[in-house]
Amino acid sequence: MPLNIHIHKVQFYETDLMGIVHHSNYLRFFEEARVAWAVSRGILDYQKPESASHLAVLETRVKHLKPAKFGDDLHVEIQAKIEKIRIIFEYKLFCQAKSADAISECRTVHVALDENLRPIKPPHLLKTILEKEKWIETWLSN
Amino acid sequence: MPLNIHIHKVQFYETDLMGIVHHSNYLRFFEEARVAWAVSRGILDYQKPESASHLAVLETRVKHLKPAKFGDDLHVEIQAKIEKIRIIFEYKLFCQAKSADAISECRTVHVALDENLRPIKPPHLLKTILEKEKWIETWLSN
Amino acid sequence: MPLNIHIHKVQFYETDLMGIVHHSNYLRFFEEARVAWAVSRGILDYQKPESASHLAVLETRVKHLKPAKFGDDLHVEIQAKIEKIRIIFEYKLFCQAKSADAISECRTVHVALDENLRPIKPPHLLKTILEKEKWIETWLSN
Amino acid sequence: MPLNIHIHKVQFYETDLMGIVHHSNYLRFFEEARVAWAVSRGILDYQKPESASHLAVLETRVKHLKPAKFGDDLHVEIQAKIEKIRIIFEYKLFCQAKSADAISECRTVHVALDENLRPIKPPHLLKTILEKEKWIETWLSN
Repeated sequence: MPLNIHIHKVQFYETDLMGIVHHSNYLRFFEEARVAWAVSRGILDYQKPESASHLAVLETRVKHLKPAKFGDDLHVEIQAKIEKIRIIFEYKLFCQAKSADAISECRTVHVALDENLRPIKPPHLLKTILEKEKWIETWLSN
Repeated sequence: MPLNIHIHKVQFYETDLMGIVHHSNYLRFFEEARVAWAVSRGILDYQKPESASHLAVLETRVKHLKPAKFGDDLHVEIQAKIEKIRIIFEYKLFCQAKSADAISECRTVHVALDENLRPIKPPHLLKTILEKEKWIETWLSN
Repeated sequence: MPLNIHIHKVQFYETDLMGIVHHSNYLRFFEEARVAWAVSRGILDYQKPESASHLAVLETRVKHLKPAKFGDDLHVEIQAKIEKIRIIFEYKLFCQAKSADAISECRTVHVALDENLRPIKPPHLLKTILEKEKWIETWLSN
Repeated sequence: MPLNIHIHKVQFYETDLMGIVHHSNYLRFFEEARVAWAVSRGILDYQKPESASHLAVLETRVKHLKPAKFGDDLHVEIQAKIEKIRIIFEYKLFCQAKSADAISECRTVHVALDENLRPIKPPHLLKTILEKEKWIETWLSN
């Protein structure tokens, strides 16, 4: 099952003059969920972020279905898989008080880098964990 | 007693290339605590932010004692008082895993505004609540 | 020709602890270019942002080719077109001191909304302007 | 004379649902000016930020006189001085299209740190430059 993670309540500083969450902040919400996923899997330690520091973001894609607003309580469902050397996450963002449907969907693609910032195979532990993850169905196409 | 509010874990997007939380984000942490305080006192409804929209920030002052880092679990102690038409909040930021002492202290000063953005007396409910608040001692001088 | 717009120098507050620009900020860079494009076309007035306030972001897609760093001088090439009621922008982000190639590419999709936040046809002026824009080639697939 | 530096036009992502610039962003504007000052004095190289990485922020103080809004063209006047081991900057933020008076004033206090994050004397070059700076008058009290 995809992991369901509570993120946080939307704050004033995440809104813009249109009265809704600025779209750039969604990538922050999804990162927050990705970090919580990595901590839950024992891949990342909140006190030792170095361990995560060589996973680069290759691509992000976000679909906006309904706006998030100040005070909304945000949840994220997240699923992960590995495809050759690429690590893929998909996310659904929910505001349960508003709707049973996702208000946003996202896909991010990552790759491990070596010291010279060249793409390499993911570390063994990460690979093993990713191969055990359940990927229900693809939410966003490539 | 000042209210003690858990804020959140520090996220990657709150750090900068020096490896610590960018100093501008502290004002966001303190706002997060101020909003939680206002909700706890029945002054603000997360679903109706309009109610808060005419309280302007006149002044902010932040002292940095120790840096906050990625993954730190932040708590804020907050106290409030009213002085004529000015509303004053003071904050202590804690990362309990690191130290019993505050890692940052802050003071913000606010005023209610009318439709034309002119300073007015605070709304009656806010005034009544502020007069009941306990102000232990002043943490930052004027 | 796509419009080439200078954005700004990368600031400390746009970097994260990995020493590079946090990926969420790229959407801010592209918005900065989109706004400058709209101003250059007479669609948006910097002093009257209301005019832009009913163009919603439906989707964003960003490819990261090389990291942007503190002090980098960023330029954006931007092109726009209209497809039925959807407005599509594509962007290439350049840091000329580093490379002649784009360091990031992006596609954002927008739609005009009515008072009730329902999708409508773009305003006439916007439509007329978009129909005159040159779309060289599609940089990112759907 | 204090240095006068153009910062940038206010962007959508710097506003909040109250329609004005979120107060946390002012510290970003002032940092932008401080960095430009350091570059203009030959202390900092945009391509080598490491040189600046051991100047910590000890304290910030911001007064808000008028709100900044989307599209405003911001200028900052900045002055600097050294007091023992503390480095002090003061700033006035202007939006010339609106008013000849500052819309915000700020004071930030910094200190150089050694490898173990302990306060030390500023590097010689920085000290020499700071001693030559003109400090017109103190804009904000301690």
